[in-house]
Amino acid sequence: MPAVGVIGGGQLARMMQPAAIALGIEIKVFAETEGSSAHYAATQVGDYTDLEQLAKFAATVDVLTFDHEHVPTALLEKLVTQGVKVRPGPAALAFAQNKLAMRRALTDLGLPVPIWAAAKTEADINKFISDNGPEIVVKTPIGGYDGKGVRVISQTSEAADWLKNIAEFGGELLCEQKVPFVRELAQLVARSPSGELRAWDTVQTVQKNGVCLEVIAPAPSPVNSQSAKEIANKIAHGLEVIGVLAVEMFETPSGELMVNELAMRPHNSGHFSIEGSVTSQFEQHLRAVLDLPLGDTTLVPESSVMVNLLGVDSKNSFVENYSIAMAKFPELKFHSYQKTPRLGRKMGHITAVGENHQQLLTDCHEAAELIYQTSLRIE
Amino acid sequence: MPAVGVIGGGQLARMMQPAAIALGIEIKVFAETEGSSAHYAATQVGDYTDLEQLAKFAATVDVLTFDHEHVPTALLEKLVTQGVKVRPGPAALAFAQNKLAMRRALTDLGLPVPIWAAAKTEADINKFISDNGPEIVVKTPIGGYDGKGVRVISQTSEAADWLKNIAEFGGELLCEQKVPFVRELAQLVARSPSGELRAWDTVQTVQKNGVCLEVIAPAPSPVNSQSAKEIANKIAHGLEVIGVLAVEMFETPSGELMVNELAMRPHNSGHFSIEGSVTSQFEQHLRAVLDLPLGDTTLVPESSVMVNLLGVDSKNSFVENYSIAMAKFPELKFHSYQKTPRLGRKMGHITAVGENHQQLLTDCHEAAELIYQTSLRIE
Repeated sequence: MPAVGVIGGGQLARMMQPAAIALGIEIKVFAETEGSSAHYAATQVGDYTDLEQLAKFAATVDVLTFDHEHVPTALLEKLVTQGVKVRPGPAALAFAQNKLAMRRALTDLGLPVPIWAAAKTEADINKFISDNGPEIVVKTPIGGYDGKGVRVISQTSEAADWLKNIAEFGGELLCEQKVPFVRELAQLVARSPSGELRAWDTVQTVQKNGVCLEVIAPAPSPVNSQSAKEIANKIAHGLEVIGVLAVEMFETPSGELMVNELAMRPHNSGHFSIEGSVTSQFEQHLRAVLDLPLGDTTLVPESSVMVNLLGVDSKNSFVENYSIAMAKFPELKFHSYQKTPRLGRKMGHITAVGENHQQLLTDCHEAAELIYQTSLRIE
Repeated sequence: MPAVGVIGGGQLARMMQPAAIALGIEIKVFAETEGSSAHYAATQVGDYTDLEQLAKFAATVDVLTFDHEHVPTALLEKLVTQGVKVRPGPAALAFAQNKLAMRRALTDLGLPVPIWAAAKTEADINKFISDNGPEIVVKTPIGGYDGKGVRVISQTSEAADWLKNIAEFGGELLCEQKVPFVRELAQLVARSPSGELRAWDTVQTVQKNGVCLEVIAPAPSPVNSQSAKEIANKIAHGLEVIGVLAVEMFETPSGELMVNELAMRPHNSGHFSIEGSVTSQFEQHLRAVLDLPLGDTTLVPESSVMVNLLGVDSKNSFVENYSIAMAKFPELKFHSYQKTPRLGRKMGHITAVGENHQQLLTDCHEAAELIYQTSLRIE
């Protein structure tokens, strides 16, 4: 019985469990805290920056994978030298952990990215603003997630605190052109150690303040899905990604695609696939890290819509509001991650599958209103 | 956060876990042994015929339900008097535990059943054979499952051992007419404490020696699905079942339906619903026992086929043979229950969803051959 070990006890590790249970594959989770979202499979609780603890966990499984990208690659490299299978490997993960490294690698691969530059000083940022302003995007290369570590600025002073503490971010900031996009897309693919690649349909995402709000699969036409898949496949192959790779992209007014961010793990933009695809991103990730043949990624039925449920306060876990939402929408799929409620926190999601994505979207949002039972929700 | 407690650590408890994980409902399992099929949620291991152990487990959850029907109803009645919510309740479960009680109840409800009689003596069986023979079916009213406790006989001597130990079976045996059926059907419904009832499409099952081999959903036409649903609804309502009820039926050459067996829990004939229905039987069971609104039971796509994987020996757990089967059939869904392999044991199943049930059936059987990797499989 192969055993997969997941570092991190969040909702992504949680949602790998149903896939593991179905396949009959043992799954173990190294969680940060007791009572994590992935608590059913949490066999160890500890500090993922401690090599000894990681090695102890790795010894209980056949392959290590991740719920998040925060494990220092230096530790992962040591595990690899000890014979641990780490998938994706530290060399690939480095590009997901550092946005400057990612920009450099994508540029080297000849892939379309926003105009960018590394900035170490006020003068560097001033120059980037005068060349690409009036507004530009500044990012901390490491440590950001869900919109944290990303700012739109028009004056260098707006990044003064980051410049002051620049050593924390690896000594450089990332400046990017503010791309005039018409919408955001995401392309998910999975790649196995044998080199098998499978892509899902390109999806449309709506983000607010860097947090995913909704996903429509497939992205409404017209969309250059072939180009999106070529980009994602090139990244998966070029960076030797193992497992699910999510590539977030901007679509410009002329229909051109530019790579925004990467994630090397199941991703919020792929949650629709639990009900919306023959093979979910969670099952595919497990298959990939175990080097099993990848599953069919055909959409079932035509269209899927996923709407995130974001915490409204520190009390409402949403499960208590299931009754009224389920009574009105017996066909919707409600997901909750058993996380302690907190304003703005990703607490769960709702998925609708069917034919008309507009109707599915309306239904999901109406159901979300019933779940929120409040006007305080994050818009 | 509501918590559901499941008595029994088999594959049905196992398959309730993905549904609980999705919904964000806490699930706890009272298992018979360490390393059970439902081990991820097994919070207690012990003896389900021990009231004290049951009460201790019940105190950790909001509602008790079941993976099997073997808990003595006398113990459940005591738990109920202690304020434990037991769903389905002991009065309903009594009919699933005792086939004579079930036959009496269905006859009282005016439902179509095979000709039957209780038999205490050789003379009783002799008379039933002469009235309804040459072949009849004899069943032990309690303790049977998967074909155990069921015999087709033409002479009373073939049930001599049961007659000798008749006290073990409640003092009576059940004699039934051997119904000349053309096929077997199953009708699954779910009922909540609020009285809400939802049925899935009627399915066709193929059994061999009392063990389910394959299921086709919906049952190929023509099938009197309305009649099947009316029968199941009448039983669910009449016996006050809570949760999933599976009604196994015979279809006679004239298209008439007769009730064969009942199960008051998710059932092998409903495994197709994990991928084949908007709401799986496992999610529906959880919703029902928690008195949440029931989910939509529409089939997604048109047709589903499920083929059981039965153990071929004490070594092959099937998971080791995934690669070749998955490579050939990327669209099939492979399920394994993490059970110790044993000849004839239900080890897992394969589900195919699509349009043409004949093709789906061919694919599932071919995939099963690849999983078995042997000619020893149970036919």
